[in-house]
Amino acid sequence: MNQDPRNGMCTVRKRILLLKFYAIPGIIDGPLSLETINPGVLSAHYAVRGKLAQLANEINKEIASGLHQYPFAKTVQANLGNPQGCGQKPLTFLRQVLCLMEYPNLLSEHESVIEGIFPSDAIQKAKDLLKHTGSVGAYSSNSGVSEIRESIAKFISERDGYPAKADNVFLTCGAFEGMLIALTLISGGRARGEKTGVLIPVPQYPVYIALMKTLDLEPIPYALEEDRKWGIPSQEKMDKIIRDSRQKGCVPRCLIIINPSNPTGAILSESDLEGLIELAAKERLLLLSDEVYQSNVFPPYQFRSCRSVLLEVQDRKRDELLFTTLQLISLHSVSKGMLGEGGQRGGYFEAVGFSSEVKHEIQKLVTFTLQPATAGQILVELMVNPPKSEDPSYKLYKSEYDAVFNRLKNKAEALVEAFQQMPGYHCQSPQGAIYLFPRVELPRAAVEAAKLSGDAPDVWYCAELLKKTGVCIVPGSGFGMGDGSKDGNIWFRVTFLGEGDEWIARLKSFQEHFMNTYV
Amino acid sequence: MNQDPRNGMCTVRKRILLLKFYAIPGIIDGPLSLETINPGVLSAHYAVRGKLAQLANEINKEIASGLHQYPFAKTVQANLGNPQGCGQKPLTFLRQVLCLMEYPNLLSEHESVIEGIFPSDAIQKAKDLLKHTGSVGAYSSNSGVSEIRESIAKFISERDGYPAKADNVFLTCGAFEGMLIALTLISGGRARGEKTGVLIPVPQYPVYIALMKTLDLEPIPYALEEDRKWGIPSQEKMDKIIRDSRQKGCVPRCLIIINPSNPTGAILSESDLEGLIELAAKERLLLLSDEVYQSNVFPPYQFRSCRSVLLEVQDRKRDELLFTTLQLISLHSVSKGMLGEGGQRGGYFEAVGFSSEVKHEIQKLVTFTLQPATAGQILVELMVNPPKSEDPSYKLYKSEYDAVFNRLKNKAEALVEAFQQMPGYHCQSPQGAIYLFPRVELPRAAVEAAKLSGDAPDVWYCAELLKKTGVCIVPGSGFGMGDGSKDGNIWFRVTFLGEGDEWIARLKSFQEHFMNTYV
Repeated sequence: MNQDPRNGMCTVRKRILLLKFYAIPGIIDGPLSLETINPGVLSAHYAVRGKLAQLANEINKEIASGLHQYPFAKTVQANLGNPQGCGQKPLTFLRQVLCLMEYPNLLSEHESVIEGIFPSDAIQKAKDLLKHTGSVGAYSSNSGVSEIRESIAKFISERDGYPAKADNVFLTCGAFEGMLIALTLISGGRARGEKTGVLIPVPQYPVYIALMKTLDLEPIPYALEEDRKWGIPSQEKMDKIIRDSRQKGCVPRCLIIINPSNPTGAILSESDLEGLIELAAKERLLLLSDEVYQSNVFPPYQFRSCRSVLLEVQDRKRDELLFTTLQLISLHSVSKGMLGEGGQRGGYFEAVGFSSEVKHEIQKLVTFTLQPATAGQILVELMVNPPKSEDPSYKLYKSEYDAVFNRLKNKAEALVEAFQQMPGYHCQSPQGAIYLFPRVELPRAAVEAAKLSGDAPDVWYCAELLKKTGVCIVPGSGFGMGDGSKDGNIWFRVTFLGEGDEWIARLKSFQEHFMNTYV
Repeated sequence: MNQDPRNGMCTVRKRILLLKFYAIPGIIDGPLSLETINPGVLSAHYAVRGKLAQLANEINKEIASGLHQYPFAKTVQANLGNPQGCGQKPLTFLRQVLCLMEYPNLLSEHESVIEGIFPSDAIQKAKDLLKHTGSVGAYSSNSGVSEIRESIAKFISERDGYPAKADNVFLTCGAFEGMLIALTLISGGRARGEKTGVLIPVPQYPVYIALMKTLDLEPIPYALEEDRKWGIPSQEKMDKIIRDSRQKGCVPRCLIIINPSNPTGAILSESDLEGLIELAAKERLLLLSDEVYQSNVFPPYQFRSCRSVLLEVQDRKRDELLFTTLQLISLHSVSKGMLGEGGQRGGYFEAVGFSSEVKHEIQKLVTFTLQPATAGQILVELMVNPPKSEDPSYKLYKSEYDAVFNRLKNKAEALVEAFQQMPGYHCQSPQGAIYLFPRVELPRAAVEAAKLSGDAPDVWYCAELLKKTGVCIVPGSGFGMGDGSKDGNIWFRVTFLGEGDEWIARLKSFQEHFMNTYV
C-alpha cells in the first residue's frame, strides 16, 4: 500500500477544518444530506435486522472476547428466516449439480473420478443444464433461461390444474426482485397527480412497507385477525379501509397477500382468498401474492395458490366483466422451503392477466433491471424438477427433504407447546412458514419498567429476553403491531429454525422469572 | 397435470367474451394499464436488447430451421457485453474454488481424490472462505461478508494509494444494484416539490437513463467529444448545461461518470476527471462513477479511479470548503475484465465522503434491498485477491488472464484496422472497455432508403448489416446519439468479444457493397 505521509496529515487537518465548519449549520452538508436524500428512504424502517440484531452482534462480540457473564455460549439467530444460516443442511443433489456446473472440467477431464463420487442423474442433469445455460458466467436472457421458464410453467400448471405459459414467468434473484418489479410498475403516481396506495396485511413482512416508502407508495394496512387464526378481515371491514383511504385522497392500486404468512405462519383458507380476489376485481387492484413459503405447510393445512383460486373464480364468474380483468403477480423463491438457499438468490414471478401492451412494458422493465443469477436459476429448475422416484438420487433426496420438513415441524410444535405453557403467552398453532408470532400480555409493572428504559415495551421485552436467553427475536412493532405501550399487549416473531432445544427451555424459565419480577 | 375439461371451454368462451369487450374501449383494461402504469416505465427505452437483438433471434430461428439463405452459419452477438456468452473461458482457479464451496462434501469426504484434481491453494482458499461465509446458501450480512469487504478495502487502498474503509464497501449482485441504490437515494424529489436531474454522458450506457425514468429522475445529457477521443466537454459547456437545466426548473443532484466508457471505450484523462470533480464540488453533485471496465485498459492508456483523483484534489484544496463535502459512489463488478462472470452477479460499490447520518440511511436502504449472491461475493474476493506469484495456481491463472487480455486487445486492433479501411467509417483507436463506437457517414441515398423502410437510418443500417453479415450491433440512437436522419452521421456500438475473425471480413465486404449500392 502506498503509505503517503500526506494521508495522516490530511486527516488531522481536515478534522480540524470540519470542526470549524460544523459551527455553520447546513454549509458543511454534502450533496446528499438528510435534507436532500429521498424522503422515502428516510421514513423507511426495517426491524428484522434492526436494534435487536445489533444487540445480538454486540453480545456475540462480548462472548468472543471471553469476558462475559451470559448464561449461554452463543446467541440463537431466531430473528431471521435464514435456514442454512441456522444449520439447515443443503440438499445434496442440488449442490452436486451446481458443483459440476461451476467447474465443468470435472465432466470433461475427470469423468471416471467423478462417476465414482456423483450419482449418474446429477451428472446428466449438469450436462443437460450446461447445454441450456452455457457457462454459468454468461448472461442469460433477462427473463431467465428459456428451458427453466418452461419447467416453471409446467410446475405451476401441475400445481394449479390450470395451464401456465413460460412467457409469463420471469426468473429473479430471490423473491425480492419480483416485489420490486411489481411495486415499480404501480409507482410513479405522483407524476400523474395521484397518491397511490397499496393494501398490505398487518402484521406484515416489513420489507414491503420499507420498499413502498422508497418508491413513494402509501401503505394501506389491513389488520389480520388473531382470534380467527390470523385470517383476513370481513368484506365490510375491507370496504371501509378502502373507502377511508380514498377519502384521504389515496388511490388503492394493489393488494398484497402473503400466504403462508410471514410473520404469523397462517395459511389462508380458500374462502379468505376468494374474498380478496373479489375485492381486487371490484376495486381494480393488482394482486401481488407472496407465496415463498408454499412448501412450508403443516398438515392438515393445505396451500392453495392465489392463481388457482383466481382462475377458478374467473371460470365460475366468466360472465362478470370485472372478473375478466383480474391481474396477478405471484412470487416464489428457493430461499425457504426445504431448500433454504437464500444466499444463492433464486426465484421467479409469474404475471397473469396482463394485456399484451402491459406485458411489453413488464418485459422492458425486466430487460433493463433484472439479470437472474445463474446458480439461483439452476436451483429454481431443481426445485420444480426434483429427482423422480426411479432416479438414483431419489432416495437420498427424499430422506434429506423429509428430515428438514420434520425437523421444522417438530421444532414448531415444541415451541408452541412451550409458549402455551408460559404465563402471559398466547400463540396460535403452527400452520406453515417458518415463524411463530406469539402475543405476550405484559404486566403493568413491566410496561412501566420499559418506559423508564426509553424503549417501547415490545423492544424492551425482546432485549431483556435476548440478554437473558441469547435468543434474538423481532418485536411486533416492526411488523406494524402495537408496541405494548397502550394496553401491555406485545407480539414478537420467532423462527423455528434454531438448532437444538435448550434455548426453548431458556425461554420458559426466562418468562417464569419475568412474570415473578413484574407481578 | 390436472386436465380439467373446463379449461379448454373456458379459454374459448373467454376469448369470445373478450372480443365483445374490446369493443368498449377502456372498460376491458385491467388494474395495470397503459394509463395507470408508472409513466417512467412507459417512457424508458433499452436498445441493447431491443429491436436488433430480436431480429438476431429471428434469424437464429430461421437458421436452426434449416430453411434460410443467410451467408453465415450463426449470428455474432456483438451487441452485448457478455464475455462468457461469446466464448470467453472462465479463469480456472476461480471456478475451482466455487465448485468446492458449492459442494463442500468434496473437501470433507473425498479429500484424497480432490487433492489429485485441485491445486492446494484452491482447496485452501475454499476452506478459508467457507469459514467466513458459512454455507453458500446462507444469507450473509446485507452489506456482504465482512472479510470480503475488508479484502475490497485493501484492494482499493493499494490501487489508489489512499486508505479505504471496509465499512464504506457494500457487496452487490453486479454493478446494477449500486446504480439502483445511488439513484434511489437521490430520487423522491417530487415529494419535496423538486424536479431532480442527473448529469449523464452521451453516448451513455442506456440502463442509466431507463432507470432514471422509472425513478422519476430527469437525465441532463453532457455530450462527449468524439474529436477529443470522446473526452469531457469544456468547463464552460458544462456550466451552460447546468445553467440551462436549472432555468428549466430541474435541479442537478448527481453527475454520472463512466470510465472506461461504455460505449466509446475511452479512458478519461486525469485532467478530465479533475474537471468533473471540481464541477461536482461547485455544483454540489453526488459523483457516481461506473468503473466496471477498470481492468480492460490497453497501454499506453492508464486507468485512474475517480476516488484517487478526488482524494488528491481534496488533499490539495483542503482549505476550500466546497471540496471537503465531495461525495462519491463508485461501482465495480466481476462481469467484465478478464473474469467476465456476469451470470454469477458479483459486484460492489464504495461510498466515500458521507456524513454518519447519511451513511446510516445508505446502510438502512442496503439492509432491506440488497442480498448479494454468495457466488458473486466469492468471485469479488478472488478478483481482488488473485493467486500470488508463489502460489501453485499462479502460472495457470496468469496465462489464462493474459490470454483473455491479449485476445481482446488483438480483436480490438483488428476491428479498428478494418473500420479505418472501410469507406465512410471513422473510428477512434481502442483505449479500453470491450467496445468500439464507430461513426458511419451514410450517403444521402442510404438515408432515403432508410426513410422508405420506416426505421431511423441507424436502426435500418444496423439491421441491413445484421441480415448480410450476421453481426448484431446496437444503433447509436440507443445510446443517445443522433439517428442519422438529419445529417447522415450514424454510430453503433460493437463489442470485440466475438470469436474468430471471419465476421470482421464480412463487415468489410458488406460496407464496400453498401457504399457501391447507395453511392
